[in-house]
Amino acid sequence: MKDATVAPLRLGMVGGGKDAFIGAVHRMAARLDDAWQVVAGALSSTPERSLESARAIGLERGYGTWQEMLEGELALPEDQRIDAVSIVTPNHLHFPVAKAFVEAGFHVVCDKPMTLTSEEAAELVRAVEAAGVVFAVTYNYTGYPLVKEARRLVREGELGELRKVVVQYRQGWLATRAEEAGSKQAAWRLDPARSGLGGAIGDIGTHAENLAATVTGLEIEAIAADLTPLVPGRRLDDDAGILVRFAGGAKGVFVISQVEVGEENGLSLSVYGSQGGLTWRQEEPNRLELTSLDGPRRVFTRAGGAYLGAAAQGASRLPSGHPEGFVEAFANLYRNVAADVRRRRGERTWLDALGLEPDYPTVVDGARGVAFIEAAVASSASSEKWTPFRFGR
Amino acid sequence: MKDATVAPLRLGMVGGGKDAFIGAVHRMAARLDDAWQVVAGALSSTPERSLESARAIGLERGYGTWQEMLEGELALPEDQRIDAVSIVTPNHLHFPVAKAFVEAGFHVVCDKPMTLTSEEAAELVRAVEAAGVVFAVTYNYTGYPLVKEARRLVREGELGELRKVVVQYRQGWLATRAEEAGSKQAAWRLDPARSGLGGAIGDIGTHAENLAATVTGLEIEAIAADLTPLVPGRRLDDDAGILVRFAGGAKGVFVISQVEVGEENGLSLSVYGSQGGLTWRQEEPNRLELTSLDGPRRVFTRAGGAYLGAAAQGASRLPSGHPEGFVEAFANLYRNVAADVRRRRGERTWLDALGLEPDYPTVVDGARGVAFIEAAVASSASSEKWTPFRFGR
Amino acid sequence: MKDATVAPLRLGMVGGGKDAFIGAVHRMAARLDDAWQVVAGALSSTPERSLESARAIGLERGYGTWQEMLEGELALPEDQRIDAVSIVTPNHLHFPVAKAFVEAGFHVVCDKPMTLTSEEAAELVRAVEAAGVVFAVTYNYTGYPLVKEARRLVREGELGELRKVVVQYRQGWLATRAEEAGSKQAAWRLDPARSGLGGAIGDIGTHAENLAATVTGLEIEAIAADLTPLVPGRRLDDDAGILVRFAGGAKGVFVISQVEVGEENGLSLSVYGSQGGLTWRQEEPNRLELTSLDGPRRVFTRAGGAYLGAAAQGASRLPSGHPEGFVEAFANLYRNVAADVRRRRGERTWLDALGLEPDYPTVVDGARGVAFIEAAVASSASSEKWTPFRFGR
Amino acid sequence: MKDATVAPLRLGMVGGGKDAFIGAVHRMAARLDDAWQVVAGALSSTPERSLESARAIGLERGYGTWQEMLEGELALPEDQRIDAVSIVTPNHLHFPVAKAFVEAGFHVVCDKPMTLTSEEAAELVRAVEAAGVVFAVTYNYTGYPLVKEARRLVREGELGELRKVVVQYRQGWLATRAEEAGSKQAAWRLDPARSGLGGAIGDIGTHAENLAATVTGLEIEAIAADLTPLVPGRRLDDDAGILVRFAGGAKGVFVISQVEVGEENGLSLSVYGSQGGLTWRQEEPNRLELTSLDGPRRVFTRAGGAYLGAAAQGASRLPSGHPEGFVEAFANLYRNVAADVRRRRGERTWLDALGLEPDYPTVVDGARGVAFIEAAVASSASSEKWTPFRFGR
Repeated sequence: MKDATVAPLRLGMVGGGKDAFIGAVHRMAARLDDAWQVVAGALSSTPERSLESARAIGLERGYGTWQEMLEGELALPEDQRIDAVSIVTPNHLHFPVAKAFVEAGFHVVCDKPMTLTSEEAAELVRAVEAAGVVFAVTYNYTGYPLVKEARRLVREGELGELRKVVVQYRQGWLATRAEEAGSKQAAWRLDPARSGLGGAIGDIGTHAENLAATVTGLEIEAIAADLTPLVPGRRLDDDAGILVRFAGGAKGVFVISQVEVGEENGLSLSVYGSQGGLTWRQEEPNRLELTSLDGPRRVFTRAGGAYLGAAAQGASRLPSGHPEGFVEAFANLYRNVAADVRRRRGERTWLDALGLEPDYPTVVDGARGVAFIEAAVASSASSEKWTPFRFGR
Repeated sequence: MKDATVAPLRLGMVGGGKDAFIGAVHRMAARLDDAWQVVAGALSSTPERSLESARAIGLERGYGTWQEMLEGELALPEDQRIDAVSIVTPNHLHFPVAKAFVEAGFHVVCDKPMTLTSEEAAELVRAVEAAGVVFAVTYNYTGYPLVKEARRLVREGELGELRKVVVQYRQGWLATRAEEAGSKQAAWRLDPARSGLGGAIGDIGTHAENLAATVTGLEIEAIAADLTPLVPGRRLDDDAGILVRFAGGAKGVFVISQVEVGEENGLSLSVYGSQGGLTWRQEEPNRLELTSLDGPRRVFTRAGGAYLGAAAQGASRLPSGHPEGFVEAFANLYRNVAADVRRRRGERTWLDALGLEPDYPTVVDGARGVAFIEAAVASSASSEKWTPFRFGR
Repeated sequence: MKDATVAPLRLGMVGGGKDAFIGAVHRMAARLDDAWQVVAGALSSTPERSLESARAIGLERGYGTWQEMLEGELALPEDQRIDAVSIVTPNHLHFPVAKAFVEAGFHVVCDKPMTLTSEEAAELVRAVEAAGVVFAVTYNYTGYPLVKEARRLVREGELGELRKVVVQYRQGWLATRAEEAGSKQAAWRLDPARSGLGGAIGDIGTHAENLAATVTGLEIEAIAADLTPLVPGRRLDDDAGILVRFAGGAKGVFVISQVEVGEENGLSLSVYGSQGGLTWRQEEPNRLELTSLDGPRRVFTRAGGAYLGAAAQGASRLPSGHPEGFVEAFANLYRNVAADVRRRRGERTWLDALGLEPDYPTVVDGARGVAFIEAAVASSASSEKWTPFRFGR
Repeated sequence: MKDATVAPLRLGMVGGGKDAFIGAVHRMAARLDDAWQVVAGALSSTPERSLESARAIGLERGYGTWQEMLEGELALPEDQRIDAVSIVTPNHLHFPVAKAFVEAGFHVVCDKPMTLTSEEAAELVRAVEAAGVVFAVTYNYTGYPLVKEARRLVREGELGELRKVVVQYRQGWLATRAEEAGSKQAAWRLDPARSGLGGAIGDIGTHAENLAATVTGLEIEAIAADLTPLVPGRRLDDDAGILVRFAGGAKGVFVISQVEVGEENGLSLSVYGSQGGLTWRQEEPNRLELTSLDGPRRVFTRAGGAYLGAAAQGASRLPSGHPEGFVEAFANLYRNVAADVRRRRGERTWLDALGLEPDYPTVVDGARGVAFIEAAVASSASSEKWTPFRFGR
């Protein structure tokens, strides 16, 4: 399970300053397995605060802006330069920062949604292909071992032919007007200029789409969405219901909300096929429930070698019953990115030892996520029942 | 809690013969509190089997057909005649049987969906009003004590202004073609001639609508539905996703299925308002979870006088921790119908002792349920996003 | 599942008047399957209240005292006389009443603990044998279908050789001095004259012993008990911890309390062997969890024919997901007693149809339960670590 | 929540080589908050493997033995020398290593049980006092935020006067003879020479004692224990049941096992007083359930500032609903040790910002834990019911 005994890769960060919850998560996740060390950063929206944050966090190299960081790092000898950059800013900055670093040859870990528009996303896909860099989008929930196990079970046919997918992502933290009560997190997420077309659909709906796609491999053909700002006065949705038609005839329902008072981070996935079903819940991530036509419900944990697939085992650090959580799942993304970076350099990594491929959400996942947000917004505004979803076709 | 020390009312049954699960439930529920005795029945679809079932069950008066039963009972002196009839047949028979007994002055307990069409439903509403009889529709899930408590909490403003309703009714028993494997239950439910326009939407979707309406009091304004026979070869839906717009701006999602392998009888309701939320699950019916903006999640059980409302207390027979279940909830419907019958006769009942009104789903609930099924079927066939729902307006 | 189409047996009750929760439970349970009708009773501790209760409940034949009832019933023609009597009184009356009815040839259903002393218990065992009547003790929790399934799994070797048994019965209703606040239930249970040697150990500890014995078949060899009145001023224990040594080397722990604030009726059983384990919890009685050395945890419900044994299936009335509860489990005891009564008359019953033997706790279970209470009280008072338990040896 | 912007402290490790699960946990935990960097180690039982492990893990300074490490570090300038050592060896080495490092003035983090005997423990207590160093024992489960909250609630009187404590620590990983199937973890734990007097009682029973003591503050007065090797052929117990008498009259039961097939890491604590109760389960560590005499059960999560105390808030890194787990709890111990080290140097730390005291299990906790193991072993061998526990009196 441990990464190879090599020096950690060097990571820079754009955004994620000292007061941003998600910045601290990125740093804990990146360092957890010794695969990365965070050495540089342009952490905040003004040069002053960026430098202050860098000092507070103890970074070797603090920069005032991401442009300065890009220049500064390029000016360093390659063996001191950052290997990759993590982009942990409000959404509107993802594209310009990502594009600039990609084009300069850096590997990138980018927050979701990847860009504000499909056009930007397509441009980024092309840039990544051209540059040949590793590009990961932080759909971090797919990093949980039992999500990987769910994917394996579905893909190996344990459920039979897929018929039904239900994804719920239900939170309550925006049930009051937090954006006016000093919450920076709420403020930018509900501001179209910084968040983009979508509110809840962009912040968490896109996780729902990615989780469904990752586990099932099903392609969405059309959706019927209803996006609503349920708290008065908002310009972006804080709640969404979506009916989904998948290619091949399976159906889905997505239940998305950030105003369900008292719900915390209630992401769950259920998938049913002709032979069985499964359910996974993010708030109890160390369980995966499996149903079948005849037998009793089975509860997979991370327990044992006997029944878990290699991907799930390789993503787990502790014996079963010793709860792993959000940070570990996030760290799995960083471990895989590091391994892919090394692989591309011709190094042998823990992936090879386990016979696994690099496993993280890619720029294509990111682009599909952006297309999904656009389709949901368009559908919600449309009087047509079904809005086609043509990503990749 | 016990019903008054009076002779039980006399109940007749149409349908619900010896092999029908739901017939046995009706009998256990009717008798549980000594409020009813089952004395007569036309229990099956042929005279022979009807009479055989009546003998097997030990009924005083078995009839070959419901018409014979109607005639036979009317021919009896009033003090021997049944007080009410329970209609426990496939859907297509609800209307003719109900109408005939109502018009003859009998009280009626009728299975859901109440009729095949809105026209029939309207006719039945008028007939019930004209006859002045008690008419209940077996939306039995609203009989659970904690559903009554949920209703009280919502109606008394505990959740603030309502914003969001999620109802899920998820089963798996139709995941295989049970209708071709000898299951009578499956066969008639999936046969449009006997079941009506709706499959799952009629069988369980209508429970979802009723549960939401009962607890929240919200009126549906429009729906966007997608009904699907996910198991190939079916003429009626076995799965449905529905987006709901309520009058006043609240939104809802209904997730309905009978093909989610391994799910049993997964009916659940979540309601959220500006101040709090609640969740109730039929498979753990003795718990009700309540959330608020600031405090911890609270778990109501049937425990105590201290915090439960009178309706919930009056609907409970055992101390908390002694599980009550499906039969008790069903029996609450029968107890309330009996009490209403007696009240109309000028008798004092346990309702008066507790300061409660009769509490059971009425012919209007039944009519609204039929309108909902029709709207869902229409919406599913429509290319318009929103199908208006104008029941009662 | 339904009982044969025969007239119900006639039941009389001693105790269980209109205000006694458990009396109402007995009546609901007895009638649920139409196996019994309650026709006679001496329901309370004074003739006046007995007769009033009988009227309130609508009994055909109310008696002032149990002696009058015994005489009165014996004076009736056999085909009107009660077939059995249920004894639902405070503990000190179980023995005299049971003995008198047994010796008069009536079948008996007796509350637990069966008698106040082992001497009385032994005398009753002899009386029952001599009279050849059916005698059941209301260890009602073994009536749950999944307890029967647990027994089957253990007895058929699914868990391998048994090593460890943990039974917990944890309530909180005696956390305050309810006995001084008008609770009759609390008052007699904490009064040695009416309750006997044991408080919580007699009221619920004996259920724990019976559940363990029924499921595992293990015989207790010695115990180390600590019984305490944790609420000051009580003369009988309201809390008990017991270490158990079983014949053959298995070990056990019983955790018993009636003062754990907020606990309701938390009876649970875990059994572990060399190959697997199982856990059942009374408050979620429709689930049984099974573990094994290699595979995932399995959750048995009452779902299907595929994996449940005949005893569990025969004890269930509703499809899985439709919660059954306390009353149904209690009713299973009454159904089995009725079937055994009929069997002894040479009638064919539902047991024969399912290939089952009568299944209810017998006078021997009752006697062992009394011996267990005595041993626990003796152990608690002893400075010796281990108090031998020699019942039946 | 973040540690001050200062260079991490330097940590050395004795034991915890590349294949030891717990070594990796220590490293992840130490580094998670940037409070420590692991720079030196003598990681294994032979010099060769120690050096190989050090290389594999990428340590700056690998040593062949702990004696070499002690010498080597002392030879370094103070500003390069390790600040503290973590002792992650089989039990028999804890004492000699800890004593040597303490006497040389190093701070120490030591695995439990702290020593093999009470005499060693007392000697270590004296040595720590004499040296004035920080000494922590890895009773890591008390690092969970909601354990800290449970302690606060109990200590502030939320439960009233304490009456009852139930601690269960139930595992199944030793249900087979893992010690003979190549498990090093199992082998040394079941070898008296390396593990000491106790098997399960020393490995996990001591966690149970510490959790109870930490949360309740109650002092054990006497115990009645039954320790058993339930798997044939073992020289040390793999299962224990313990009855506990606390000073002041409260009672307790500890249920300990490592042979309950299928149980993973089932540590749980319930505490009840005159006014309320609480339950916490390690496998769902982000929930704490609270009961009271009158109101509904409340479920605390890590949600909000509104109701959690400062210690719990200060121990949490992520918003509620984002699961924290075992590593974070373990890291809380390391963070507190680091802060205490700095405090003793006169530095201001995050503790000061939050108004908190250093919070980790001390050498006295360690000594009490050893005394508890000894008492349990003595009690189990004794024919006396109660074995007094006189630690600290």
